Amino acid sequence: PDRFIDDVVEFAHKVEKLGKDDPRRIIHSIKVGLTLSLVSLLYFFRPVYGGFGSSTMPAILTVVVVFEFSVGATLGKGFNRALATLLAGALGFGAHHLATLAGDKGHPAILWFFIFLLAAVASFVRFFPGVKARYDYGVLIFILTFCLVSVSGDQEDEILELAHKRVSTIAIGCLTCVIMSIFVFPVWAGHDLHKLIARNIEKQADFLQGFGELYFGKKGGTDMSWLHGYRSVLNSMTAEEAMANFGRWEPPHGKFRFGHPWKQYLKISAMTRQCAYRLEALSNSITSEMKEPSEFKKIITLSCMEISVELGKALQEISTAIKDMRYPFAVSTHIMNAKTAAEGLHRALEAITLDSTNILEDVIPAASVTSLLLEIIECTENIAE
Amino acid sequence: PDRFIDDVVEFAHKVEKLGKDDPRRIIHSIKVGLTLSLVSLLYFFRPVYGGFGSSTMPAILTVVVVFEFSVGATLGKGFNRALATLLAGALGFGAHHLATLAGDKGHPAILWFFIFLLAAVASFVRFFPGVKARYDYGVLIFILTFCLVSVSGDQEDEILELAHKRVSTIAIGCLTCVIMSIFVFPVWAGHDLHKLIARNIEKQADFLQGFGELYFGKKGGTDMSWLHGYRSVLNSMTAEEAMANFGRWEPPHGKFRFGHPWKQYLKISAMTRQCAYRLEALSNSITSEMKEPSEFKKIITLSCMEISVELGKALQEISTAIKDMRYPFAVSTHIMNAKTAAEGLHRALEAITLDSTNILEDVIPAASVTSLLLEIIECTENIAE
Repeated sequence: PDRFIDDVVEFAHKVEKLGKDDPRRIIHSIKVGLTLSLVSLLYFFRPVYGGFGSSTMPAILTVVVVFEFSVGATLGKGFNRALATLLAGALGFGAHHLATLAGDKGHPAILWFFIFLLAAVASFVRFFPGVKARYDYGVLIFILTFCLVSVSGDQEDEILELAHKRVSTIAIGCLTCVIMSIFVFPVWAGHDLHKLIARNIEKQADFLQGFGELYFGKKGGTDMSWLHGYRSVLNSMTAEEAMANFGRWEPPHGKFRFGHPWKQYLKISAMTRQCAYRLEALSNSITSEMKEPSEFKKIITLSCMEISVELGKALQEISTAIKDMRYPFAVSTHIMNAKTAAEGLHRALEAITLDSTNILEDVIPAASVTSLLLEIIECTENIAE
Repeated sequence: PDRFIDDVVEFAHKVEKLGKDDPRRIIHSIKVGLTLSLVSLLYFFRPVYGGFGSSTMPAILTVVVVFEFSVGATLGKGFNRALATLLAGALGFGAHHLATLAGDKGHPAILWFFIFLLAAVASFVRFFPGVKARYDYGVLIFILTFCLVSVSGDQEDEILELAHKRVSTIAIGCLTCVIMSIFVFPVWAGHDLHKLIARNIEKQADFLQGFGELYFGKKGGTDMSWLHGYRSVLNSMTAEEAMANFGRWEPPHGKFRFGHPWKQYLKISAMTRQCAYRLEALSNSITSEMKEPSEFKKIITLSCMEISVELGKALQEISTAIKDMRYPFAVSTHIMNAKTAAEGLHRALEAITLDSTNILEDVIPAASVTSLLLEIIECTENIAE
């Protein structure tokens, strides 16, 4: 029983952490619960409202499937579902009509053929990368509704009534979801993306500002969390692409107007990632080289530290500029400073002759990578709004 | 009309390319079509078979939603769906029973509360990373079925009959999907993962083997596709994790026995990615430095090329070893060769005094990165089966 209690405590801690990391998760859960119970009211008030009853099912189904964490995802799914249902319903009805023309015997064969054809074609369409990213769910619903409509009932007016009910309940479900997700504590995917990109750049800035001190021996305290913060950037691509996709579905809100350049975010983030690869190389030189500073190292210390810190400041400036959605004015001066420092380093390197070339192996990468960083930061600057 | 024809031709090319890239896509589409039409036969043979009729709907729904490209994904979804339906059905029935005890007035209120509670809790559970990865779909179906059962019908025996029909049709749908995906041209996610990892390592081997020649001036022809091949490794993490997840669902097949170490693949691939970051740094030195070889460069050429080629061979060996599922015997000799070459390089560097230090900036990174590669390859060797 003690182990059981331990397990429970551990589980509670996990839950607490999950909630604390992002309190919107708890709000989201409550929102889903509310929306579902709202929609199921349709069923409970059957005697009063009259009409729906057991055909509330599609509405419940819609809410469960469509309600997503962010507004963009919910809108995207709702739109997909509504459009696909309408389209497939119409097509299914057409197929049914065609099939009845063929008489009692031909009817099933023709329907059967249509189902096969449509399912195969639609499944293939799902492999198109563009369709996969934005309309995957819609195509699924399309196949589903087509099958349901063409198979259900023999009488055409029966089908029409069924279709009418289905469409109206699905519309109710979609609308409830969309309203709940937009007006009750909305979670904007675009906003999240915006913050994520800014935070990613900030992490790199932290790294660069801390790197100089650590590498050249003036160790900076015990808090080393900044050292590996940038690593999350390396594998963030898929998440960012998904967010940008959702962001495109979202209506204008707050500082984000219609037609916000979501693709720009992806470009910036691709460059940030390029930068992170360099940082990864830099951070390797930290672990492999923590001996006492050699003579050569002393020569380059000053310029290298300046480059690193200035670049850090530049990135920090870009990050806050993105957060506040303004042009990063101070970036160019920081980059200029970094460049002059780099020139000083070059001159210093040309002036000295070295006997202990071995050390170079650990030191020069820093300089070369830093100069690479220079290029990349310029690119980022050009694009940052 | 000309533009229209152009568009059609372009579209046809796209379709052709999609099919040629992976012909299994076409087979998959046909499989989905066949499965769906098979299941809808249940409906058409109603007079003969007797019984099902319009309750074939859940079966069709199941097929559309569960049938995925790979065996693992289909099995995982089918399992999720079946288990969640059973569990939620039982719970829903229990909730319904509890609610009836409360009398006519309390009944809706209690059900309403249950729905709210369950939907909120289940939505929160979906945020757990472990649940998200493997049981996300199951939790969705769980909420759905619970709502449907607790809302549908007032009479308990009515619900039981509905549940019985639903479960049997869903079981039929799941079974058809699983059988079709396993026995008709199966696509094994585990097999794909296996091939992907081997191919990723091979790409890096190609890069390393070509890099030496290109970097030290002996340009190797016009086919430069190997140069950027490794880039696909950088962002492959999400895809690989998904495949490993699917792979775990798959039954033993071919060379893959039960309990195949899918996690090992992820470890190898993480190391491969570490290696790719270094290659990215290497490839940057190519573009920035294509001048005529300096004196210093000539000194290091031989050893560097040997290191690069030997490492390339070692990776190639690992790749083929993974493909054939055997122990990579030849790797250690290649790595030994690379190490002796690296030692030679060290000695050469210690012996010479340099006047033109500037060039070092471009050359040394290659050496240092190559020695980093050495470490990583050793790690990979330890894990490769």
